[in-house]
Amino acid sequence: MKRTALFISDSTGITASALGKLLEHFPHTEFSQVRLPFTDTPEKIQIAKQSILKATVQDGIRPVVIMSLGNLDLRNTLKEADAYFIDLFTAFIDPLGIELGEQPLTGSGIAHGIMGSSYSDRMEAINFTLNHDDGMTNSGLEEAQVILVGVSRCGKTPTSIYLAMQFGIKAANYPLIPEDFERGTLPAALHAHTDKIFGLTIKAERLHSVRSERRPDSKYASLENCKQEIATAENLMRNAGISWADSTSRSIEELSAIILQKIASKKDKSN
Amino acid sequence: MKRTALFISDSTGITASALGKLLEHFPHTEFSQVRLPFTDTPEKIQIAKQSILKATVQDGIRPVVIMSLGNLDLRNTLKEADAYFIDLFTAFIDPLGIELGEQPLTGSGIAHGIMGSSYSDRMEAINFTLNHDDGMTNSGLEEAQVILVGVSRCGKTPTSIYLAMQFGIKAANYPLIPEDFERGTLPAALHAHTDKIFGLTIKAERLHSVRSERRPDSKYASLENCKQEIATAENLMRNAGISWADSTSRSIEELSAIILQKIASKKDKSN
Repeated sequence: MKRTALFISDSTGITASALGKLLEHFPHTEFSQVRLPFTDTPEKIQIAKQSILKATVQDGIRPVVIMSLGNLDLRNTLKEADAYFIDLFTAFIDPLGIELGEQPLTGSGIAHGIMGSSYSDRMEAINFTLNHDDGMTNSGLEEAQVILVGVSRCGKTPTSIYLAMQFGIKAANYPLIPEDFERGTLPAALHAHTDKIFGLTIKAERLHSVRSERRPDSKYASLENCKQEIATAENLMRNAGISWADSTSRSIEELSAIILQKIASKKDKSN
Repeated sequence: MKRTALFISDSTGITASALGKLLEHFPHTEFSQVRLPFTDTPEKIQIAKQSILKATVQDGIRPVVIMSLGNLDLRNTLKEADAYFIDLFTAFIDPLGIELGEQPLTGSGIAHGIMGSSYSDRMEAINFTLNHDDGMTNSGLEEAQVILVGVSRCGKTPTSIYLAMQFGIKAANYPLIPEDFERGTLPAALHAHTDKIFGLTIKAERLHSVRSERRPDSKYASLENCKQEIATAENLMRNAGISWADSTSRSIEELSAIILQKIASKKDKSN
């Protein structure tokens, strides 16, 4: 079954789109997703209503509309259209306001502007993480909140960037390379920071395939070498008392949630 | 007023946390946010219930709980606690299932796993974007879906990475530098790609402050030089017929929404 999902917002539409992830609970419906951000005038509401009509004609069934509009008039005008509406204000924000005993702000762009206290932290974390990618520098490691280690191409970079971008975590990452394996210890620069190191590992077959895309038929990419690097890296992490997670079947979102939990539980223990 | 917001999920808790953005509509309530991901066993539900109790005692008022639990028994057990519950299943997924005529999947990790068709696209886009940051290479630019241009330190890198990570958009970025200003045209490598170039600009005072953090008292950071670079860059973009947005008071989320809309409207026109 084909169906259109429209995300209609007076701002970026990011919160509404995030809810769109829940559409994946319905694998038998094939959604085509349409974003209509910055829908903040009567004219743009008319365009949105036309989009609803167009989707209905195309699919032969009314669309799902996930909407976040602060202005009550715009909200009501949009709802004159025939669609299945999920309205973040009536479903979540207004009832929550009653519980909190506080009138919600209804201006647009409240949730994703640059004013939130966390925005500058996130930008600073992104800079830090890009500057401390792939063991690029040892300077400033004391500022890192987490240091990811693991063999080359096991997923350290995208996971670090996700932690920085989404949660404002300063995440450095360090590759474990043949010299480390020969020596049998973590890189010297990391010895002072073992409490904030987290490891990533990966299945040899998957690593072989990822590396082969980059350098086909190299020793670096060979299954034999991948197996050996992974076994040695895991051994090294075990000896150093470092926790790790397998990235083979986990998304960067899942890995990040695991790492955040680890950080939180260490904080709990040290309090 | 202090209040705890708990995000309790059987998986990463990312969708639930995204809804947490809506708490910013209530500026008079000071929320402390607690994430409890991977709450997928009766034992972990008990720990979650204890967290609810602890928050109630600490704040002197019951917490807000945003929950996403596929398993009905776990869901009901959690709800025995006293809290203000926002349940993504009862509020959103179950009613949507009735509209769609489809039973929702209730397993954990449906929304943020690596199985979604878009996950590998996102990872590929992140690699592409990191490899095409700051004009690092001209090779493969034909694959880019968008190329951001602008003066050094106007926000190109974090915006590009956000586009890649969140939407799977292959976003290259190119700095506009004094040589371009002298020549008065875009870098030669970009001439074939003007249809997918989008500009960022920034207020001179802000750029001066950002650059001064990096290189204090340099000509590069001086207000005079910032003013001149920005005026020349805007002129250059105007002559090349390139749209641009001002990053001074916009978050990367807002800039990305603007850029996505631009891409979508160009597609509409070319159809």
